[in-house]
Amino acid sequence: MTDQPCIAIDAMGGDEGLAVMLAGVASARRRLAAQYDGLNFLLVGDETAIRAGLESHPNLSAHSEIVHAPELVGPNEKPSQAIRRAKVTSMGVTIDLVKKARAHAAVSSGNTGALMAMAKLSLRTLPGIDRPALAAPLPTLGDNDVVMLDLGANTECDARNLVQFAVMGAAYARIIFELDRPRVALLNIGSEDQKGTDEIRAAATELRAATHLPLAFTGFVEGDKLARGNHDVIVCDGFAGNIALKTAEGTARFVGDLLKRAFTSSIRSKVGFLISRPATQLLRDHLDPNNHNGAIFLGLKGIVVKSHGSANELGVATAIANAVKLVRADLTRRIAEDLGLDHRPAPAPVAVIDTGVGV
Amino acid sequence: MTDQPCIAIDAMGGDEGLAVMLAGVASARRRLAAQYDGLNFLLVGDETAIRAGLESHPNLSAHSEIVHAPELVGPNEKPSQAIRRAKVTSMGVTIDLVKKARAHAAVSSGNTGALMAMAKLSLRTLPGIDRPALAAPLPTLGDNDVVMLDLGANTECDARNLVQFAVMGAAYARIIFELDRPRVALLNIGSEDQKGTDEIRAAATELRAATHLPLAFTGFVEGDKLARGNHDVIVCDGFAGNIALKTAEGTARFVGDLLKRAFTSSIRSKVGFLISRPATQLLRDHLDPNNHNGAIFLGLKGIVVKSHGSANELGVATAIANAVKLVRADLTRRIAEDLGLDHRPAPAPVAVIDTGVGV
Repeated sequence: MTDQPCIAIDAMGGDEGLAVMLAGVASARRRLAAQYDGLNFLLVGDETAIRAGLESHPNLSAHSEIVHAPELVGPNEKPSQAIRRAKVTSMGVTIDLVKKARAHAAVSSGNTGALMAMAKLSLRTLPGIDRPALAAPLPTLGDNDVVMLDLGANTECDARNLVQFAVMGAAYARIIFELDRPRVALLNIGSEDQKGTDEIRAAATELRAATHLPLAFTGFVEGDKLARGNHDVIVCDGFAGNIALKTAEGTARFVGDLLKRAFTSSIRSKVGFLISRPATQLLRDHLDPNNHNGAIFLGLKGIVVKSHGSANELGVATAIANAVKLVRADLTRRIAEDLGLDHRPAPAPVAVIDTGVGV
Repeated sequence: MTDQPCIAIDAMGGDEGLAVMLAGVASARRRLAAQYDGLNFLLVGDETAIRAGLESHPNLSAHSEIVHAPELVGPNEKPSQAIRRAKVTSMGVTIDLVKKARAHAAVSSGNTGALMAMAKLSLRTLPGIDRPALAAPLPTLGDNDVVMLDLGANTECDARNLVQFAVMGAAYARIIFELDRPRVALLNIGSEDQKGTDEIRAAATELRAATHLPLAFTGFVEGDKLARGNHDVIVCDGFAGNIALKTAEGTARFVGDLLKRAFTSSIRSKVGFLISRPATQLLRDHLDPNNHNGAIFLGLKGIVVKSHGSANELGVATAIANAVKLVRADLTRRIAEDLGLDHRPAPAPVAVIDTGVGV
């Protein structure tokens, strides 16, 4: 849609602080500058702190503007509480820049629940979508990652929500994996028709009948087959999705810790490890969450990317690269199209940007 | 309770067939014979086939009896259908031997749903228990495994079910880990009080207040911290438990597959792998599900152990060793005590065993 994407960055969110956020933005700019000549950033947060931080990144300074916001959303702040302070927080102002079409997408490493609540309230959902869902690509043994949603935005979902998630997830997979008809499965505790909750079975019935949609419904998938590469999209409620995502993260770390123990248990195994290191380094890169960072809230009238709270410079850059890709692919319009709905024109590229306005 | 445990074995259940079941029983007997002089088995299934299979295990023959059952429960058979044929199936007859106090415990590698339904119908739940739960110990980085329940027997649960699971799981952990006050947590999608479903929050409130119980309630645990070794029991509904268990299994296999790829990607890495092999073999043993085999249905008036459908000889032997340990520790009585309930006297040891009765 535009070769001059403008991305609003919640510079104050995330556990790692402003310096890591700015390093990540600078890194993303270096990575993407050749491809997107006019790429620029709105850096939202405490103006003085950001200005000081930018001194280490002169190149970024030339392609960004600071938008002041005096307050922060705390990592454990309740969404209902954060919403009341939206207008003065870096997170709220970042989202508002998308709403006002001053930016094409927002990226935040802050409190997920607050981000979801603010984004929904400010940007609103696409017509026909009851609830946005948090989606992210996860690594597999196959040719592409698998998009999983919802990852925790909606604790409980009905069949209608799950079907909407399937359509949105498929639209997302079509863009990021460049597929015509993504294979979509519902997460369940068995592959037989009678397994699972009423909601899941009803969603399956509806998806089986919806042959007009640009997706191939493949039935139920169990937790042990998420990473096999047999599916492009896996749909579930936010409770199951969060449990599955975090259990996968925890188990990968657990196996890694056991490996470390094994490889350091004797001189012999240490030597073997050092020899194999280039290979295990590749594996580490493949599993590093920072290489898969950037969950997105699907179903909103605007692009909001959630970077992991503990993302490092690489992770922040990956999340921003995802945001730019989705802006470029016109994600919001394409989801609206797949839902068979009218859509609004995308915001025009932002050339001149005011700074320092409290919004 | 007895030094002469008698274990009923569903010899026909499981994906690996009769030969693997018999090899597993023979292996368990060899492993346990020194400790339990009078250990013996009731092998349930097709009499002719079992008799032929026993020719490879003369030692087992001397310590087992065959109980004929002409039919099988299929791996995908609906529980409601299997129940109607209970009396003629190897699974149903195996459970019935526990009900009739001819065996102290039943072990089956067959269809989980059918086993649960038959066990509940035949043995009944302990007074005060609404639903039995499937529990199993899983590996951690800590000093002991962690007991997780429910793993799939109950798709949806209310707060009362979850509290009962906590009490039963703690009683189980006290026995197998030899702990006084096991640390019990509820699986959730966040650690803050307001996270999760109404059911989980209500269960937390109740467990926090129940300081008279022989357990230490530690609040909510997220999926990425299951294997850290900070908890002894993790409680959830059967949907979340099944998703978490299978996702952990699948992720461990996924990381293993990636490691295999990494180690075979070059001559150099292959050499390193061969040198480190003794260490990685230890890791493999630690993660091998056959070393953790033997889920148990807690809350029944009798001990029923579910061996994994694809368990090998080692897996079947591990499940049987678990069953014997639980018989010896008088699990059913101890759970009933923890629930503050009356309990029935344990069945007397079986000295002489009839064979061939169709029950």
